Amino acid sequence: MKNSSENINNYIYGKNSVLETISQNPRRINKIFFSTGINFDNKLKKIKEAAEKNSILIQFTNLNKFNKYFQTDDKKLQNINFQGVLASVSPVEYKDFEEFLDEKTSKYKKAVILDGVTDPHNFGAIIRTLAAASFDAVIIPKHRCCPVSAVVEKTSAGAVNHISIIKVNSLPSTIDVLKKNDWWIIAADAQCEDNYFDISYKDMNFAIILGAEGEGVSKTLLNKADFKVKIPCAFESLNVSAAAAVIVYESVRQIHQK
Amino acid sequence: MKNSSENINNYIYGKNSVLETISQNPRRINKIFFSTGINFDNKLKKIKEAAEKNSILIQFTNLNKFNKYFQTDDKKLQNINFQGVLASVSPVEYKDFEEFLDEKTSKYKKAVILDGVTDPHNFGAIIRTLAAASFDAVIIPKHRCCPVSAVVEKTSAGAVNHISIIKVNSLPSTIDVLKKNDWWIIAADAQCEDNYFDISYKDMNFAIILGAEGEGVSKTLLNKADFKVKIPCAFESLNVSAAAAVIVYESVRQIHQK
Repeated sequence: MKNSSENINNYIYGKNSVLETISQNPRRINKIFFSTGINFDNKLKKIKEAAEKNSILIQFTNLNKFNKYFQTDDKKLQNINFQGVLASVSPVEYKDFEEFLDEKTSKYKKAVILDGVTDPHNFGAIIRTLAAASFDAVIIPKHRCCPVSAVVEKTSAGAVNHISIIKVNSLPSTIDVLKKNDWWIIAADAQCEDNYFDISYKDMNFAIILGAEGEGVSKTLLNKADFKVKIPCAFESLNVSAAAAVIVYESVRQIHQK
Repeated sequence: MKNSSENINNYIYGKNSVLETISQNPRRINKIFFSTGINFDNKLKKIKEAAEKNSILIQFTNLNKFNKYFQTDDKKLQNINFQGVLASVSPVEYKDFEEFLDEKTSKYKKAVILDGVTDPHNFGAIIRTLAAASFDAVIIPKHRCCPVSAVVEKTSAGAVNHISIIKVNSLPSTIDVLKKNDWWIIAADAQCEDNYFDISYKDMNFAIILGAEGEGVSKTLLNKADFKVKIPCAFESLNVSAAAAVIVYESVRQIHQK
């Protein structure tokens, strides 16, 4: 660490996050710092082995002193629990939207579009759920979405390396292109008629649009959706990452269940 | 605020959290502090009206200076965003387990049992999901679970006032009593055969046991379960609050859908 202050977003930390990144995408990692004087468990050993295999620089140091090097606006980051490991990384590579459309990876593709979700913990949690549910991509707008920061990587438990993250200039025109390419667009909307389990997710490419808490999905995008679905709620609404888990796994259930 | 240091857990903060508590359980609130010099929006107005109606003391003050009064081990709490409102409260009242069993509130009752979930953000998020899904209760052990702290109340968006929170001495013997009282016990277990959507949640009292990330549900409790279910995951496992949302809402789907 050369400078007296660094941007935390050039680093990832936490065992799962570093282990997933080094397994899936070792070229992103420039250097790994391990804490001195800690219990070197299985996950840390695996990270060290993978680092050696990939000729990645390793340094043992007192990680606690690193906290003060990071400049961040997020007050929650002022005392990071590194879990013994910190890695300096190049940023997550965004997937090009056109390239994603052309890829013949699976018969049908599944994506989530985030409209105005700015909380990094929610963004990371959603990415983790999408990777678990074998979704292909998350599509975010250039503006009104948080970047793939260290908090997002950590909350995703390294899942940022498992699905395509696509950043687009305009969500409305991206949705138009998806529709032209035989995708179906489903928007979450608390005010609509259909429940999320009333529609079919089988045998089609589909993208689910989720909006920010409070505001929901913007009117422009709602108007472009083929289906609008709600989650029945007896109390307030669900947190956006819980809502994502519920709808995404309903599609998993329909596709899995005979 | 009389003393030079206070326990944050005697307070709740955030508009939704305070609004829900004053609507559902005004007797819990001793005094409300509003920030001076902020935009007094609809939610804050509703809180003020409800406070006046319930003869609750109100004080306008500079809330930012309050941060330093709170003693807390949680570093994330060192700079709280109060959203303009802070209330001094008596603790959440736990519901007595026997009383809960005897209550004739609905034909069938639904609960979640948390085994070793210690993260307050996950606990709060799960309570919020349970209230949205019309569940009756969350059952936690006296040890190995975090208390209903200010963070839990805030993350639950006030939902702690909407469902019964039951604290028991022993989860195994509580499960025995539930089974004797015609409840079915479902445990989440990554290693089992059945998917969470392969079992029926209809026409029965049931409790879903969820374990801590990494460790899962303890063997003793797994052995007592009538059903063990897993969530199919292509990448790692889900966060416990996402897992709760997925299983809980599968039961909602089955009960709602014709």
